[in-house]
Amino acid sequence: MALLGGPKELWPDDLKKHLQHVQESGKQLLGVDRGSLLLLEEGVVPDIAIGDFDSLKAGELDEVERQVSEIRYSQPVKDWTDSELMLQAAFQDYEDTSLTIYGATGGRLDHFLVNLLTFLKPEFRPYLEKVQLIDQQNVVEYRHAGKHHITPITGYPYIGIVALTPIDRLTIRGARYQLDHFSSKVPIAFASNEFLPRTSGFEVSLDQGVICLIYSRDRHRFMTV
Amino acid sequence: MALLGGPKELWPDDLKKHLQHVQESGKQLLGVDRGSLLLLEEGVVPDIAIGDFDSLKAGELDEVERQVSEIRYSQPVKDWTDSELMLQAAFQDYEDTSLTIYGATGGRLDHFLVNLLTFLKPEFRPYLEKVQLIDQQNVVEYRHAGKHHITPITGYPYIGIVALTPIDRLTIRGARYQLDHFSSKVPIAFASNEFLPRTSGFEVSLDQGVICLIYSRDRHRFMTV
Repeated sequence: MALLGGPKELWPDDLKKHLQHVQESGKQLLGVDRGSLLLLEEGVVPDIAIGDFDSLKAGELDEVERQVSEIRYSQPVKDWTDSELMLQAAFQDYEDTSLTIYGATGGRLDHFLVNLLTFLKPEFRPYLEKVQLIDQQNVVEYRHAGKHHITPITGYPYIGIVALTPIDRLTIRGARYQLDHFSSKVPIAFASNEFLPRTSGFEVSLDQGVICLIYSRDRHRFMTV
Repeated sequence: MALLGGPKELWPDDLKKHLQHVQESGKQLLGVDRGSLLLLEEGVVPDIAIGDFDSLKAGELDEVERQVSEIRYSQPVKDWTDSELMLQAAFQDYEDTSLTIYGATGGRLDHFLVNLLTFLKPEFRPYLEKVQLIDQQNVVEYRHAGKHHITPITGYPYIGIVALTPIDRLTIRGARYQLDHFSSKVPIAFASNEFLPRTSGFEVSLDQGVICLIYSRDRHRFMTV
């Protein structure tokens, strides 16, 4: 599990429970830049802290350096972002088979789009089906070209399907809104699709391109009147 | 000006001032779905309310219908999103020459990505250099292929440049981080570029594709220590 520096208010309510679970199970816990400090503030010590730490005050960085045994400093002017260094640590050094990433959304949209689009780069594409970006209202997953069975996640009534690249023959079958062999030369987002009741999910296929799935929920659920 | 239904907490602090200015200048004020109600709650009546209004309770919709003279109902199952109907109203019916859009970010990421990527569709591409998406920390603008002089916005120290489509020969000159004839078959984001001091901006050019510019600022500015 990795925590990036996005705003705390967007953390899912059960993040603390997840942190405990990660610690008890002995899985790697990675803090990226300000995320390292935020983990310490939650009472958990990341296994590795990664970043240029330019978002930390000197005293805060001291605290990270005092408590975290492995720190990887990135260069402010660099080819790889802090998050990319984290992915390398998780998947290459520790050979994680899956990774949930918190704190990747909210705040500065340039940061969010870097986090969202990183997995399109050739060096990170191998990991794209292994990650989830999670915040309070959304779970983001990725899929390569191919045929996929998409299963629901309890508590998330909506699912958006977003072509992040040019796509060939995107087809959605068995969801509330179908799509048949849709091709596009530019990215396009389809919001607010839904799982049909009493199904185990729906089928998505595409011949070429990368899509992301955005499981989402409203923050304020209204009573029907 | 248009207000979409994104979370109020992400509105820029000076939105009220902008609303007043829009009203005094006699410009169109467009409410999209829940954004229509939010405008009424701020004490301003939109010229048009557009949406399927499925995010409103019956009593809230009554209020919108009572106060707003022109309401355009969209169909829940439809080809165009509520925001796209709004763009049509603004640019075709009212021939706006520019449009600032608030409430397009935050909350559900499928909604945000629909809003961000709408301008790549052939029918909305003509408007892409005429819009700004604004929230508390970000101002998003778009540019077609071509050569552009990018000017700073006071109070926004960072600028991200995001290729939203495949791009050819993206070049950035005169900013803190340069780029020279960079081509990519997939979208890619470059975060945290900066304007150089004592310059009127920098030059961006590309031979093919669409980019967005994300002017951004941190929410908590730290004192240097």
